[in-house]
Amino acid sequence: MPYVNIKVTREEVTAEQKAGLIKGVTTLLTEILGKNPETTVVVIEEIDTDNWGIGGEPVTVRRRRGQ
Amino acid sequence: MPYVNIKVTREEVTAEQKAGLIKGVTTLLTEILGKNPETTVVVIEEIDTDNWGIGGEPVTVRRRRGQ
Amino acid sequence: MPYVNIKVTREEVTAEQKAGLIKGVTTLLTEILGKNPETTVVVIEEIDTDNWGIGGEPVTVRRRRGQ
Amino acid sequence: MPYVNIKVTREEVTAEQKAGLIKGVTTLLTEILGKNPETTVVVIEEIDTDNWGIGGEPVTVRRRRGQ
Amino acid sequence: MPYVNIKVTREEVTAEQKAGLIKGVTTLLTEILGKNPETTVVVIEEIDTDNWGIGGEPVTVRRRRGQ
Amino acid sequence: MPYVNIKVTREEVTAEQKAGLIKGVTTLLTEILGKNPETTVVVIEEIDTDNWGIGGEPVTVRRRRGQ
Repeated sequence: MPYVNIKVTREEVTAEQKAGLIKGVTTLLTEILGKNPETTVVVIEEIDTDNWGIGGEPVTVRRRRGQ
Repeated sequence: MPYVNIKVTREEVTAEQKAGLIKGVTTLLTEILGKNPETTVVVIEEIDTDNWGIGGEPVTVRRRRGQ
Repeated sequence: MPYVNIKVTREEVTAEQKAGLIKGVTTLLTEILGKNPETTVVVIEEIDTDNWGIGGEPVTVRRRRGQ
Repeated sequence: MPYVNIKVTREEVTAEQKAGLIKGVTTLLTEILGKNPETTVVVIEEIDTDNWGIGGEPVTVRRRRGQ
Repeated sequence: MPYVNIKVTREEVTAEQKAGLIKGVTTLLTEILGKNPETTVVVIEEIDTDNWGIGGEPVTVRRRRGQ
Repeated sequence: MPYVNIKVTREEVTAEQKAGLIKGVTTLLTEILGKNPETTVVVIEEIDTDNWGIGGEPVTVRRRRGQ
Protein backbone atom coordinates (compact mmCIF):
# COMPACT_ATOMS: atom_id res chain seq x y z
CA MET A 1 0.00 0.00 0.00
CA PRO A 2 2.95 2.41 0.20
CA TYR A 3 3.31 5.16 -2.36
CA VAL A 4 6.76 6.23 -3.53
CA ASN A 5 7.50 9.20 -5.76
CA ILE A 6 10.97 9.48 -7.30
CA LYS A 7 11.93 12.72 -9.00
CA VAL A 8 15.08 12.87 -11.13
CA THR A 9 16.33 15.14 -13.88
CA ARG A 10 15.30 14.12 -17.41
CA GLU A 11 18.64 12.89 -18.71
CA GLU A 12 18.15 9.74 -20.75
CA VAL A 13 16.88 7.39 -18.10
CA THR A 14 16.17 4.08 -19.89
CA ALA A 15 13.12 1.85 -19.44
CA GLU A 16 15.43 -0.79 -17.95
CA GLN A 17 16.75 1.64 -15.33
CA LYS A 18 13.19 2.65 -14.45
CA ALA A 19 12.21 -1.02 -14.10
CA GLY A 20 15.24 -1.52 -11.85
CA LEU A 21 14.25 1.36 -9.60
CA ILE A 22 10.65 0.11 -9.37
CA LYS A 23 11.77 -3.42 -8.50
CA GLY A 24 14.42 -2.25 -6.03
CA VAL A 25 12.20 0.17 -4.11
CA THR A 26 9.33 -2.33 -3.94
CA THR A 27 11.68 -5.02 -2.60
CA LEU A 28 13.02 -2.62 0.06
CA LEU A 29 9.52 -1.85 1.32
CA THR A 30 8.68 -5.56 1.46
CA GLU A 31 11.88 -6.51 3.25
CA ILE A 32 12.11 -3.62 5.71
CA LEU A 33 8.46 -2.88 6.46
CA GLY A 34 6.73 -6.11 5.39
CA LYS A 35 4.58 -4.24 2.87
CA ASN A 36 2.57 -6.08 0.22
CA PRO A 37 4.29 -5.55 -3.17
CA GLU A 38 0.97 -6.02 -5.02
CA THR A 39 -0.33 -2.68 -3.74
CA THR A 40 2.98 -0.80 -3.60
CA VAL A 41 2.97 2.06 -6.10
CA VAL A 42 6.15 3.70 -7.43
CA VAL A 43 5.90 6.78 -9.65
CA ILE A 44 9.00 8.16 -11.39
CA GLU A 45 8.91 11.75 -12.62
CA GLU A 46 11.57 13.13 -14.95
CA ILE A 47 12.09 16.87 -14.71
CA ASP A 48 13.72 19.05 -17.38
CA THR A 49 17.09 20.44 -16.27
CA ASP A 50 15.75 24.00 -16.73
CA ASN A 51 13.11 23.20 -14.11
CA TRP A 52 15.39 21.64 -11.49
CA GLY A 53 17.32 24.00 -9.26
CA ILE A 54 20.06 23.31 -6.77
CA GLY A 55 22.48 25.78 -5.20
CA GLY A 56 20.18 28.57 -6.40
CA GLU A 57 20.52 27.88 -10.12
CA PRO A 58 19.07 25.54 -12.77
CA VAL A 59 20.85 22.26 -13.46
CA THR A 60 21.09 23.37 -17.13
CA VAL A 61 23.45 26.14 -16.07
CA ARG A 62 25.51 23.81 -13.86
CA ARG A 63 25.81 21.21 -16.63
CA ARG A 64 27.16 23.90 -18.98
CA ARG A 65 29.95 24.52 -16.48
CA GLY A 66 30.63 20.78 -16.36
CA GLN A 67 29.04 20.12 -12.96
CA MET B 1 -8.62 26.36 -0.53
CA PRO B 2 -7.97 22.62 -0.71
CA TYR B 3 -5.37 21.27 -3.09
CA VAL B 4 -5.92 17.93 -4.81
CA ASN B 5 -3.36 16.09 -6.90
CA ILE B 6 -4.55 13.17 -9.04
CA LYS B 7 -1.94 10.93 -10.65
CA VAL B 8 -3.01 8.42 -13.31
CA THR B 9 -1.22 6.55 -16.07
CA ARG B 10 -1.06 8.39 -19.41
CA GLU B 11 -3.52 6.29 -21.39
CA GLU B 12 -5.69 8.54 -23.53
CA VAL B 13 -7.52 10.49 -20.88
CA THR B 14 -9.75 12.98 -22.72
CA ALA B 15 -10.29 16.65 -21.89
CA GLU B 16 -13.91 15.79 -21.05
CA GLN B 17 -12.85 13.12 -18.56
CA LYS B 18 -10.41 15.56 -16.96
CA ALA B 19 -13.14 18.20 -16.71
CA GLY B 20 -15.39 15.57 -15.09
CA LEU B 21 -12.78 14.70 -12.49
CA ILE B 22 -12.17 18.39 -11.69
CA LYS B 23 -15.88 19.08 -11.31
CA GLY B 24 -16.52 15.91 -9.30
CA VAL B 25 -13.68 16.37 -6.83
CA THR B 26 -14.48 20.05 -6.31
CA THR B 27 -18.14 19.21 -5.63
CA LEU B 28 -17.13 16.53 -3.10
CA LEU B 29 -14.99 19.00 -1.15
CA THR B 30 -17.79 21.54 -1.13
CA GLU B 31 -20.45 19.06 -0.03
CA ILE B 32 -18.44 17.11 2.54
CA LEU B 33 -16.17 19.79 4.02
CA GLY B 34 -17.95 23.00 3.05
CA LYS B 35 -14.90 24.23 1.11
CA ASN B 36 -15.11 27.20 -1.24
CA PRO B 37 -14.96 25.89 -4.85
CA GLU B 38 -13.49 29.20 -6.07
CA THR B 39 -10.17 28.49 -4.33
CA THR B 40 -10.17 24.69 -4.69
CA VAL B 41 -7.30 23.59 -6.93
CA VAL B 42 -7.22 20.20 -8.71
CA VAL B 43 -4.09 19.16 -10.61
CA ILE B 44 -4.11 16.03 -12.78
CA GLU B 45 -0.78 14.46 -13.69
CA GLU B 46 -0.51 11.78 -16.38
CA ILE B 47 2.44 9.43 -15.97
CA ASP B 48 3.96 7.28 -18.72
CA THR B 49 3.38 3.57 -18.15
CA ASP B 50 7.17 3.00 -18.08
CA ASN B 51 7.33 5.32 -15.09
CA TRP B 52 4.47 3.81 -13.05
CA GLY B 53 5.24 0.72 -11.06
CA ILE B 54 2.94 -1.61 -9.17
CA GLY B 55 3.66 -5.12 -7.92
CA GLY B 56 7.37 -4.40 -8.45
CA GLU B 57 7.19 -3.87 -12.22
CA PRO B 58 6.28 -1.12 -14.70
CA VAL B 59 2.69 -0.92 -15.96
CA THR B 60 4.11 -1.21 -19.51
CA VAL B 61 5.19 -4.76 -18.71
CA ARG B 62 1.85 -5.63 -17.10
CA ARG B 63 -0.10 -4.24 -20.07
CA ARG B 64 1.94 -6.46 -22.43
CA ARG B 65 0.75 -9.47 -20.45
CA GLY B 66 -2.82 -8.19 -20.72
CA GLN B 67 -3.15 -6.89 -17.14
CA MET C 1 -4.00 2.18 -9.66
CA PRO C 2 -4.50 5.96 -9.44
CA TYR C 3 -3.01 7.92 -6.57
CA VAL C 4 -4.85 10.90 -5.16
CA ASN C 5 -3.47 13.32 -2.59
CA ILE C 6 -5.89 15.72 -0.89
CA LYS C 7 -4.46 18.54 1.20
CA VAL C 8 -6.76 20.57 3.47
CA THR C 9 -6.26 22.77 6.52
CA ARG C 10 -6.34 20.93 9.86
CA GLU C 11 -9.67 22.18 11.15
CA GLU C 12 -11.56 19.35 12.83
CA VAL C 13 -12.12 17.06 9.88
CA THR C 14 -13.92 13.98 11.25
CA ALA C 15 -13.18 10.33 10.42
CA GLU C 16 -16.62 10.17 8.76
CA GLN C 17 -15.81 13.11 6.50
CA LYS C 18 -12.48 11.51 5.56
CA ALA C 19 -14.22 8.22 4.78
CA GLY C 20 -16.70 10.16 2.62
CA LEU C 21 -13.90 11.81 0.65
CA ILE C 22 -12.11 8.48 0.14
CA LYS C 23 -15.30 6.78 -1.06
CA GLY C 24 -16.33 9.69 -3.27
CA VAL C 25 -12.98 10.16 -5.01
CA THR C 26 -12.57 6.41 -5.59
CA THR C 27 -16.06 6.20 -7.10
CA LEU C 28 -15.30 9.14 -9.42
CA LEU C 29 -12.17 7.45 -10.75
CA THR C 30 -14.07 4.22 -11.32
CA GLU C 31 -16.99 5.89 -13.08
CA ILE C 32 -15.08 8.42 -15.19
CA LEU C 33 -11.87 6.54 -16.01
CA GLY C 34 -12.85 2.92 -15.37
CA LYS C 35 -10.09 2.52 -12.74
CA ASN C 36 -10.00 -0.47 -10.40
CA PRO C 37 -11.05 0.71 -6.91
CA GLU C 38 -9.02 -2.07 -5.26
CA THR C 39 -5.74 -0.40 -6.21
CA THR C 40 -6.88 3.23 -6.01
CA VAL C 41 -5.03 5.02 -3.21
CA VAL C 42 -6.31 8.23 -1.58
CA VAL C 43 -4.12 10.06 0.95
CA ILE C 44 -5.54 12.98 2.95
CA GLU C 45 -3.08 15.39 4.55
CA GLU C 46 -4.19 17.94 7.13
CA ILE C 47 -2.02 21.04 7.35
CA ASP C 48 -1.83 23.44 10.30
CA THR C 49 -3.30 26.86 9.49
CA ASP C 50 0.09 28.48 10.28
CA ASN C 51 1.58 26.40 7.47
CA TRP C 52 -1.04 27.11 4.79
CA GLY C 53 -0.75 30.36 2.91
CA ILE C 54 -3.12 32.00 0.49
CA GLY C 55 -3.15 35.60 -0.68
CA GLY C 56 0.38 35.94 0.70
CA GLU C 57 -0.48 35.24 4.34
CA PRO C 58 -1.12 32.28 6.64
CA VAL C 59 -4.70 31.03 7.06
CA THR C 60 -4.28 31.59 10.83
CA VAL C 61 -4.07 35.34 10.18
CA ARG C 62 -7.07 35.27 7.84
CA ARG C 63 -9.17 33.27 10.32
CA ARG C 64 -8.43 35.90 13.02
CA ARG C 65 -9.94 38.55 10.73
CA GLY C 66 -12.98 36.31 10.22
CA GLN C 67 -12.09 35.11 6.71
CA MET D 1 18.38 20.64 2.49
CA PRO D 2 14.86 21.98 1.91
CA TYR D 3 12.80 20.74 -1.00
CA VAL D 4 10.46 23.10 -2.82
CA ASN D 5 7.96 22.09 -5.49
CA ILE D 6 6.35 24.84 -7.57
CA LYS D 7 3.42 23.92 -9.80
CA VAL D 8 2.18 26.42 -12.39
CA THR D 9 0.15 26.17 -15.57
CA ARG D 10 2.18 25.53 -18.73
CA GLU D 11 1.86 28.92 -20.37
CA GLU D 12 5.17 29.92 -21.91
CA VAL D 13 7.32 30.21 -18.82
CA THR D 14 10.83 31.09 -20.02
CA ALA D 15 14.12 29.60 -18.83
CA GLU D 16 14.98 33.04 -17.40
CA GLN D 17 11.79 33.15 -15.37
CA LYS D 18 12.47 29.65 -14.06
CA ALA D 19 16.02 30.64 -13.11
CA GLY D 20 14.57 33.69 -11.32
CA LEU D 21 12.16 31.55 -9.31
CA ILE D 22 14.92 29.09 -8.37
CA LYS D 23 17.24 31.88 -7.26
CA GLY D 24 14.51 33.76 -5.40
CA VAL D 25 13.15 30.78 -3.47
CA THR D 26 16.64 29.56 -2.54
CA THR D 27 17.57 33.03 -1.26
CA LEU D 28 14.38 33.20 0.83
CA LEU D 29 15.17 29.88 2.52
CA THR D 30 18.71 31.02 3.25
CA GLU D 31 17.67 34.39 4.64
CA ILE D 32 14.61 33.33 6.65
CA LEU D 33 15.60 29.86 7.87
CA GLY D 34 19.39 29.89 7.49
CA LYS D 35 19.29 26.92 5.12
CA ASN D 36 22.33 25.91 3.07
CA PRO D 37 21.68 26.87 -0.59
CA GLU D 38 24.02 24.13 -1.83
CA THR D 39 21.54 21.42 -0.80
CA THR D 40 18.32 23.36 -1.41
CA VAL D 41 16.34 21.73 -4.22
CA VAL D 42 13.65 23.56 -6.23
CA VAL D 43 11.54 21.64 -8.75
CA ILE D 44 9.19 23.50 -11.11
CA GLU D 45 6.38 21.54 -12.75
CA GLU D 46 4.36 22.98 -15.61
CA ILE D 47 0.86 21.58 -15.94
CA ASP D 48 -1.30 21.70 -19.09
CA THR D 49 -4.31 23.98 -18.69
CA ASP D 50 -6.64 21.02 -19.38
CA ASN D 51 -5.18 19.34 -16.30
CA TRP D 52 -5.43 22.29 -13.88
CA GLY D 53 -8.79 22.94 -12.31
CA ILE D 54 -9.98 25.84 -10.20
CA GLY D 55 -13.55 26.80 -9.37
CA GLY D 56 -14.62 23.33 -10.52
CA GLU D 57 -13.48 23.69 -14.14
CA PRO D 58 -10.30 23.40 -16.20
CA VAL D 59 -8.21 26.54 -16.75
CA THR D 60 -8.58 25.92 -20.52
CA VAL D 61 -12.29 26.66 -20.20
CA ARG D 62 -11.70 29.76 -18.07
CA ARG D 63 -9.08 31.10 -20.50
CA ARG D 64 -11.60 30.77 -23.36
CA ARG D 65 -13.95 33.04 -21.43
CA GLY D 66 -11.10 35.50 -20.93
CA GLN D 67 -10.39 34.69 -17.28
CA MET E 1 20.26 15.35 -6.62
CA PRO E 2 17.19 13.09 -6.80
CA TYR E 3 14.26 13.62 -4.47
CA VAL E 4 12.33 10.63 -3.17
CA ASN E 5 9.11 10.81 -1.16
CA ILE E 6 7.90 7.66 0.58
CA LYS E 7 4.40 7.63 2.05
CA VAL E 8 3.36 4.81 4.36
CA THR E 9 0.67 4.36 7.00
CA ARG E 10 1.66 5.45 10.52
CA GLU E 11 1.95 2.05 12.14
CA GLU E 12 4.97 1.96 14.44
CA VAL E 13 7.74 2.40 11.92
CA THR E 14 10.99 2.49 13.92
CA ALA E 15 13.91 4.89 13.47
CA GLU E 16 16.02 1.89 12.40
CA GLN E 17 13.53 0.95 9.68
CA LYS E 18 13.48 4.55 8.44
CA ALA E 19 17.29 4.62 8.37
CA GLY E 20 17.21 1.36 6.39
CA LEU E 21 14.81 2.80 3.81
CA ILE E 22 16.91 5.96 3.46
CA LYS E 23 20.12 3.98 3.00
CA GLY E 24 18.52 1.47 0.62
CA VAL E 25 16.85 4.01 -1.66
CA THR E 26 19.97 6.20 -1.81
CA THR E 27 22.10 3.17 -2.73
CA LEU E 28 19.65 2.19 -5.50
CA LEU E 29 19.84 5.64 -7.06
CA THR E 30 23.62 5.57 -6.92
CA GLU E 31 23.93 2.09 -8.40
CA ILE E 32 21.23 2.31 -11.08
CA LEU E 33 21.46 5.97 -12.15
CA GLY E 34 24.91 6.98 -10.92
CA LYS E 35 23.44 9.73 -8.72
CA ASN E 36 25.52 11.47 -6.07
CA PRO E 37 24.35 10.25 -2.64
CA GLU E 38 25.48 13.49 -0.99
CA THR E 39 22.64 15.42 -2.66
CA THR E 40 20.03 12.65 -2.73
CA VAL E 41 17.09 13.56 -0.50
CA VAL E 42 14.65 10.98 0.90
CA VAL E 43 11.57 12.14 2.81
CA ILE E 44 9.36 9.62 4.63
CA GLU E 45 5.83 10.65 5.51
CA GLU E 46 3.70 8.60 7.89
CA ILE E 47 -0.05 8.96 7.36
CA ASP E 48 -2.75 8.13 9.93
CA THR E 49 -4.82 5.09 8.94
CA ASP E 50 -8.00 7.27 8.97
CA ASN E 51 -6.39 9.38 6.24
CA TRP E 52 -5.23 6.57 3.95
CA GLY E 53 -7.83 5.05 1.66
CA ILE E 54 -7.64 2.01 -0.56
CA GLY E 55 -10.50 0.09 -2.14
CA GLY E 56 -12.74 3.07 -1.39
CA GLU E 57 -12.42 2.93 2.40
CA PRO E 58 -9.99 4.04 5.13
CA VAL E 59 -7.29 1.62 6.25
CA THR E 60 -8.68 1.98 9.80
CA VAL E 61 -11.86 0.23 8.66
CA ARG E 62 -9.92 -2.50 6.85
CA ARG E 63 -7.66 -3.12 9.86
CA ARG E 64 -10.78 -3.60 12.06
CA ARG E 65 -11.89 -6.40 9.71
CA GLY E 66 -8.43 -7.95 9.98
CA GLN E 67 -7.16 -6.85 6.56
CA MET F 1 -3.29 29.94 -9.10
CA PRO F 2 0.17 28.44 -8.51
CA TYR F 3 0.69 25.83 -5.83
CA VAL F 4 3.94 25.74 -3.87
CA ASN F 5 4.96 23.03 -1.44
CA ILE F 6 7.92 23.68 0.85
CA LYS F 7 9.34 20.79 2.84
CA VAL F 8 11.85 21.47 5.64
CA THR F 9 13.03 19.57 8.70
CA ARG F 10 10.97 20.15 11.85
CA GLU F 11 13.44 22.20 13.82
CA GLU F 12 11.62 25.03 15.61
CA VAL F 13 10.39 27.01 12.65
CA THR F 14 8.38 29.92 14.11
CA ALA F 15 5.00 31.20 12.89
CA GLU F 16 6.77 34.45 11.90
CA GLN F 17 9.27 32.57 9.74
CA LYS F 18 6.44 30.63 8.08
CA ALA F 19 4.56 33.87 7.40
CA GLY F 20 7.77 35.28 5.89
CA LEU F 21 8.16 32.31 3.55
CA ILE F 22 4.50 32.51 2.48
CA LYS F 23 4.76 36.23 1.77
CA GLY F 24 8.11 35.93 0.02
CA VAL F 25 7.17 33.06 -2.28
CA THR F 26 3.83 34.66 -3.19
CA THR F 27 5.57 37.93 -4.04
CA LEU F 28 8.10 36.11 -6.25
CA LEU F 29 5.34 34.43 -8.26
CA THR F 30 3.55 37.75 -8.69
CA GLU F 31 6.68 39.63 -9.75
CA ILE F 32 8.27 37.01 -11.99
CA LEU F 33 5.23 35.30 -13.54
CA GLY F 34 2.47 37.86 -12.98
CA LYS F 35 0.43 35.38 -10.96
CA ASN F 36 -2.57 36.49 -8.90
CA PRO F 37 -1.59 36.34 -5.20
CA GLU F 38 -5.22 35.80 -4.16
CA THR F 39 -5.23 32.28 -5.59
CA THR F 40 -1.57 31.42 -4.91
CA VAL F 41 -1.36 28.59 -2.37
CA VAL F 42 1.77 27.88 -0.30
CA VAL F 43 1.89 24.77 1.91
CA ILE F 44 4.79 24.27 4.35
CA GLU F 45 5.44 20.76 5.65
CA GLU F 46 7.78 20.12 8.57
CA ILE F 47 9.37 16.68 8.59
CA ASP F 48 10.90 14.96 11.63
CA THR F 49 14.68 14.61 11.36
CA ASP F 50 14.33 10.80 11.62
CA ASN F 51 12.25 10.92 8.43
CA TRP F 52 14.54 13.14 6.35
CA GLY F 53 17.50 11.49 4.70
CA ILE F 54 20.44 13.00 2.88
CA GLY F 55 23.75 11.37 2.02
CA GLY F 56 22.13 8.01 2.74
CA GLU F 57 21.38 8.65 6.41
CA PRO F 58 18.76 10.39 8.56
CA VAL F 59 19.34 14.02 9.54
CA THR F 60 19.03 12.91 13.19
CA VAL F 61 22.27 10.95 12.80
CA ARG F 62 24.03 13.85 11.05
CA ARG F 63 22.93 16.33 13.74
CA ARG F 64 24.43 14.06 16.43
CA ARG F 65 27.78 14.32 14.65
CA GLY F 66 27.38 18.10 14.57
CA GLN F 67 26.48 18.38 10.85
